Amino acid sequence: MSEQLPIALDAMGGDHAPLSVVEGAAIALRKVPNLRFLFFGQENEIAPLLKRFPAVEAVSDIVHCDHKIADDAKPSTAMRQSKGSSMRAAIEAVEAGHAQAVVSAGNTGALMAIAKLVLKTLPGVSRPAAASLFPTRNAQVVMLDLGANLECSAEELFQFAIMGDAFARAVLGIEYPRVGLLNVGEEQNKGHPEIREAARMLRESDFDINFYGFVEGNHVPQGVVDVVVSDGFSGNIMLKTAEGTAKLVRDFLKDAFNSNLLTKLSYLLAYQTMKILRKRLDPRRYNGAMFLGLNGVVVKSHGGADEYAFSFAIRNAAELVKHRTGHRITEELKLSGPVKPVAVAEGAA
Amino acid sequence: MSEQLPIALDAMGGDHAPLSVVEGAAIALRKVPNLRFLFFGQENEIAPLLKRFPAVEAVSDIVHCDHKIADDAKPSTAMRQSKGSSMRAAIEAVEAGHAQAVVSAGNTGALMAIAKLVLKTLPGVSRPAAASLFPTRNAQVVMLDLGANLECSAEELFQFAIMGDAFARAVLGIEYPRVGLLNVGEEQNKGHPEIREAARMLRESDFDINFYGFVEGNHVPQGVVDVVVSDGFSGNIMLKTAEGTAKLVRDFLKDAFNSNLLTKLSYLLAYQTMKILRKRLDPRRYNGAMFLGLNGVVVKSHGGADEYAFSFAIRNAAELVKHRTGHRITEELKLSGPVKPVAVAEGAA
Repeated sequence: MSEQLPIALDAMGGDHAPLSVVEGAAIALRKVPNLRFLFFGQENEIAPLLKRFPAVEAVSDIVHCDHKIADDAKPSTAMRQSKGSSMRAAIEAVEAGHAQAVVSAGNTGALMAIAKLVLKTLPGVSRPAAASLFPTRNAQVVMLDLGANLECSAEELFQFAIMGDAFARAVLGIEYPRVGLLNVGEEQNKGHPEIREAARMLRESDFDINFYGFVEGNHVPQGVVDVVVSDGFSGNIMLKTAEGTAKLVRDFLKDAFNSNLLTKLSYLLAYQTMKILRKRLDPRRYNGAMFLGLNGVVVKSHGGADEYAFSFAIRNAAELVKHRTGHRITEELKLSGPVKPVAVAEGAA
Repeated sequence: MSEQLPIALDAMGGDHAPLSVVEGAAIALRKVPNLRFLFFGQENEIAPLLKRFPAVEAVSDIVHCDHKIADDAKPSTAMRQSKGSSMRAAIEAVEAGHAQAVVSAGNTGALMAIAKLVLKTLPGVSRPAAASLFPTRNAQVVMLDLGANLECSAEELFQFAIMGDAFARAVLGIEYPRVGLLNVGEEQNKGHPEIREAARMLRESDFDINFYGFVEGNHVPQGVVDVVVSDGFSGNIMLKTAEGTAKLVRDFLKDAFNSNLLTKLSYLLAYQTMKILRKRLDPRRYNGAMFLGLNGVVVKSHGGADEYAFSFAIRNAAELVKHRTGHRITEELKLSGPVKPVAVAEGAA
């Protein structure tokens, strides 16, 4: 029998909480039978929902919390008022060792701020990053940072590369992931100084990283790299634009199939295949931003996630725990040797 | 009979030049009959090509230029060595009034640098921006800047908004375009100081702009705004990610239709409709980055553009000329009153 894997769930975070959280746990449990759950939130709301899912109830405990972090609270305010909130209590459960990961669909900035405060960053990591998966032509790509750090130094980008490398090895099972830096061109003189300096550090590092070089936005979905590293502003733009564009094309396609009797018949003929295509592109399957670089696994679900999407955030958390990604990152940062930033960034060569 | 519209073409720029340039001119001429062309480049290469297209030859002149700007030249180097190049001579034709616009598929950075040097910026514009169109759910969106200015001040973003507004009025014919600033969230406290300050300036400006506020990457393809303004780094990431993702979904769809006999039959049934869909998403139809804010119309085609794509760059140039977009930008910048940056950027409110 495999080891139990207890996960702390912020039952009050997200638009459809706590229902989507409990139902999401039920779906995840069917896929990962050794999961255990700690639900943090209003006991009188959670308990009746658990009654509906006896399998979940059998492996769950509820920890009553009186209040929740507001979705629109500023991270600093949220942090000050976080004591006793479902989000903070769930994070503290990881710190105390009662749970091995925490999943929340609540306020992103607050989750990152409180997680940093409570769990602290891993040795050698200056700032945690948010990472996510996106489909590519033949596989998936890890994108980070997705908005936790709007502006990043070269050293931070370098650390993100190592964290993304560890993540891809763990969750995607790739032995030697190709790691690229997001830029506006592939030539070495492209982009701003931080990114050119990060590239230099990655090229010259003692750490054995499969550094691809710079990668452009149009090449990422084609799968030329397994990990794409960027500051949080650009990464957020990249991920959301990719999501929005995929939806746009799906909508166009839906229009096309609905346009007349012939196209409707055509859709029926291709139904099974289109179902696979739809599944391949379903954004719910890519739900869950993983906060990397913390002493503990923290996964942020989309606020609007339904139960199916939420179940993927839980499963991602379980994968990160199973593969001891945090431990790998620490080891790899040690192996990478002292990071060697140069005092003056090189100009465009 | 409508007025003649002479356009200067850098016949040597791009992967498939000069053939794609001459053939592109032929396609554009069929759509816009009052076009005239000035071809800049190797006369002995261009002349025989023109012979194949008598309609183009009849409205064209060749200006022989001995050399071309290398695709991989740094803008500063290219500028120093630009005298007598096909790109520079084509730009100078606009400055001298021999042509009303210039189109080149050559080195982007060099084109921007030389165009700035030769044509100068419009009154009130600090830095020109590169703009392009992208399809949305029901129409198209203007995106700028796409890489001409990697980092931008609040005032520059403000000017880009006004330029994008003028562009959308001219080329898309929208009376009161909705203008958004690209950001990682919609709330006023999101993003870095420059972007928050630009938003404040747009909200408080005397200029009658239909300012939508912040817009996220996933909402842009849905068409919530007509113009999306960003720094050149984020804009480049956004446009290329959108292009790459649209291609990814098209590729998935192609795989799906090719997967078995049934899906192949399905494709035949939907053929006409899928052709429309393919056309709607054809990146060649969106070829042409317009450099806004210069004393003259400058359009940059993709380096890899074929003749069909190149013809769209020419047609876009013609639209900008017809609608006197430069003049509009100057007028609107005047109307917008003195731009009022505050000395210290407001912190997150």
